[in-house]
Amino acid sequence: MNLPSSDIFIGEIIGTAILILFGAGVNAAITLNRSKAQNAGWIVIAFGWGFGVLAGAYTAAPLSGGHINPAVTVGIATQTGENWDKVPVYIAGQIVGAMLGAVLAWLVYYSQFALNRDKDISMPTLGIFSTIPEIRSPVANLVTEIIATVALVLPVLAFGLTRGLGESGTALLIVALLVVGIGLSLGGPTGYAINPARDLGPRIVHTLLPIPNKGTSDWGYSWVPVVGPIIGGVLGALIYNLAF
Amino acid sequence: MNLPSSDIFIGEIIGTAILILFGAGVNAAITLNRSKAQNAGWIVIAFGWGFGVLAGAYTAAPLSGGHINPAVTVGIATQTGENWDKVPVYIAGQIVGAMLGAVLAWLVYYSQFALNRDKDISMPTLGIFSTIPEIRSPVANLVTEIIATVALVLPVLAFGLTRGLGESGTALLIVALLVVGIGLSLGGPTGYAINPARDLGPRIVHTLLPIPNKGTSDWGYSWVPVVGPIIGGVLGALIYNLAF
Amino acid sequence: MNLPSSDIFIGEIIGTAILILFGAGVNAAITLNRSKAQNAGWIVIAFGWGFGVLAGAYTAAPLSGGHINPAVTVGIATQTGENWDKVPVYIAGQIVGAMLGAVLAWLVYYSQFALNRDKDISMPTLGIFSTIPEIRSPVANLVTEIIATVALVLPVLAFGLTRGLGESGTALLIVALLVVGIGLSLGGPTGYAINPARDLGPRIVHTLLPIPNKGTSDWGYSWVPVVGPIIGGVLGALIYNLAF
Amino acid sequence: MNLPSSDIFIGEIIGTAILILFGAGVNAAITLNRSKAQNAGWIVIAFGWGFGVLAGAYTAAPLSGGHINPAVTVGIATQTGENWDKVPVYIAGQIVGAMLGAVLAWLVYYSQFALNRDKDISMPTLGIFSTIPEIRSPVANLVTEIIATVALVLPVLAFGLTRGLGESGTALLIVALLVVGIGLSLGGPTGYAINPARDLGPRIVHTLLPIPNKGTSDWGYSWVPVVGPIIGGVLGALIYNLAF
Repeated sequence: MNLPSSDIFIGEIIGTAILILFGAGVNAAITLNRSKAQNAGWIVIAFGWGFGVLAGAYTAAPLSGGHINPAVTVGIATQTGENWDKVPVYIAGQIVGAMLGAVLAWLVYYSQFALNRDKDISMPTLGIFSTIPEIRSPVANLVTEIIATVALVLPVLAFGLTRGLGESGTALLIVALLVVGIGLSLGGPTGYAINPARDLGPRIVHTLLPIPNKGTSDWGYSWVPVVGPIIGGVLGALIYNLAF
Repeated sequence: MNLPSSDIFIGEIIGTAILILFGAGVNAAITLNRSKAQNAGWIVIAFGWGFGVLAGAYTAAPLSGGHINPAVTVGIATQTGENWDKVPVYIAGQIVGAMLGAVLAWLVYYSQFALNRDKDISMPTLGIFSTIPEIRSPVANLVTEIIATVALVLPVLAFGLTRGLGESGTALLIVALLVVGIGLSLGGPTGYAINPARDLGPRIVHTLLPIPNKGTSDWGYSWVPVVGPIIGGVLGALIYNLAF
Repeated sequence: MNLPSSDIFIGEIIGTAILILFGAGVNAAITLNRSKAQNAGWIVIAFGWGFGVLAGAYTAAPLSGGHINPAVTVGIATQTGENWDKVPVYIAGQIVGAMLGAVLAWLVYYSQFALNRDKDISMPTLGIFSTIPEIRSPVANLVTEIIATVALVLPVLAFGLTRGLGESGTALLIVALLVVGIGLSLGGPTGYAINPARDLGPRIVHTLLPIPNKGTSDWGYSWVPVVGPIIGGVLGALIYNLAF
Repeated sequence: MNLPSSDIFIGEIIGTAILILFGAGVNAAITLNRSKAQNAGWIVIAFGWGFGVLAGAYTAAPLSGGHINPAVTVGIATQTGENWDKVPVYIAGQIVGAMLGAVLAWLVYYSQFALNRDKDISMPTLGIFSTIPEIRSPVANLVTEIIATVALVLPVLAFGLTRGLGESGTALLIVALLVVGIGLSLGGPTGYAINPARDLGPRIVHTLLPIPNKGTSDWGYSWVPVVGPIIGGVLGALIYNLAF
């Protein structure tokens, strides 16, 4: 497909904004005091992010194909060897969209964030926006993100080969459930960025927003959830081209 | 499509009644003493409401298209600029249906509500019927409802563009899972009305029903879950028309 | 469709056996000591039964259409006015299948049931096989079962009208998720039989099986989960014929 | 279909590796200290494994049909009476893939496993890799695995008969949800191997990997989750050939 750059840019902004609205939203829902979903558990996190992919990707699909993830964009470009000139447009839209989504999630939970003025919440606010590893170890964290992103990009590329999945419009549903599965299974060590825009955009917003007692934005870790997923996206595409 | 008004009215009554039967039902299931699902958690709430959309929308679809939500009806009319004369028929059916569904949910949990005669239940009965914000702040609550409804209406409009999704009949399944996601991610502050009929109909029923110790029907808050979703529906349609 | 009686009988035996194997299985999984899923919560119950419908209905579908529930069979016969002569074949297969499934579930959890020799389990064994109301009140329990069964049969009939749902083979998936929703939302008071064979077959098996300290089979309640769902099935069909 | 042996071998390696990456991954996520998903419950286990089937089977499908389970391969060969010469290729790929997936899951949770040097984790590490019965009783455990595998293979064979399910590409989604259901309902006694490669491959890896304080690999039990599923696969195919 040869989609116009303006459609790609707008589609990826909208789609990624929806993804992060749902994703940062569910993190806030689980974390913040006076949220009805506080402490609702890992199953809620994983389905919240997965259905964020569902909502964002189906919405963006008619405009941009619905990548909403630089690792997917780079993976597809690596696999096909085509459309590398569109990659910056995709990624720019994804980062702008991720920032927009993080602001929207903050607005949805504005009153809950404001409570932070008075008392501690159960987790630093950064964890609502960006990923924090449970055990800080750059090499191990990078390996986790690489493998988890291969487990996203290789299947996403292969799903395209299943007869009828695209024609019946259910391909993106399968991708969304795949992301639920990655969260459930591979999210334990690092919180599964598997998407550079998902981590970088909200981290910028966390740095800028006037949230009371927000704590550090932890820029020292920020390269891991960017570099890991990009390596994973390329690796997934190379494995695909070898195997299929 | 040019559906007859009588079909629209009947379809929306049945579909919205099923939605609220499931939705008020799951709230009762979680809240009331001597329910097998008491305290079963936020994941149960979100899937209960989402599968209520699934059941109600698929049932109403052949008659009315299955809007079962005034914000969706107004959003579609705003987006297409057509069929504004049918909007009051849709909304009338949705409110009647929501009231009917609330009565049915009360009948299903009749014995559990009756316990309220003797002892306190863990939450005021109003929360089973209508939404209650965790932190009362009209502007913040309105913003939450607006954003959450945009996150419903914009994707619903865009899903129509995905090739095959309607033809294979799975479009409403995707909408139902979208509503699960909105609940998981954006329901924390206000309980996600995102549907004026869903809140208003059951609130009327709560006012009228002879439930022992039922507490206030909190009409002071009732405009927020009506106005917010309508604004969100219009806004979602405008964003759609700008972007697509 | 004019299916041969032998196919119907065999299909319904297999399909209902699978349904009850999963359903009684998940009840045992949640209830019994030394089960890995003990106390895993209402979400597990509802998805376990719903995916039992998925497994049983898809397996039986090519032979019998996959009713696996006398309320569905009676509802379809009432709606169409046809094939009443096949109804006894369906119901016989469903009851035999339900008994077979209950025996299989007992075999799967044989060692766990055997523990009952020594110590109490957290719930009487009957609750694994058949439904027990939380608050015993024949009229209220009957009303709950009637409404919950209408919420099954009316949508199931209407789903057939959605373009593409049957052609793409996803109709039974929607029915299975509908049953998850009924469980989540309407199961709190009586444990949602919504299927006479689902309750009667396992109750017979509970009476016959040599389970240590199994307690009463509570035949005094057994008519409610038979009569309620049959009334609900007929009522759902009548509403369908009025509305559609 | 007459697929080339090299495609089968590579497809089954990749698909089974993904299955076990997700499956052993979710077991690690739930079990290990300093995992964000620790103690997240049985619902997480069952969906993690089921979506592992989704990811692995859809990825392998274009190359090998996506069996990723010797019980399915033997079941299909028994049912059709054909392609027995390809069975060893399938099984070899499945065992190699299962080993590869177990190593990948270990790498994802490397830092968490490393904690084991200092303190106890809540469950022996073997349970992350392979199945452990709750109550050790070879005959009862074997019966559990046989019935649970029949409940996998008989439906999988029957799903192929549902019109449109394969054409719309959703057949493997139904299989994945079936596996979620088997986990929820039938996993309580033995942890539901229902797949010889799923148990044997990771057990070999557990024996070889340098995990601190890893405990026994329990080879005395290892024949049950191999023999049980093979018997179940053959039995499921024979029931299918009798009934359909």
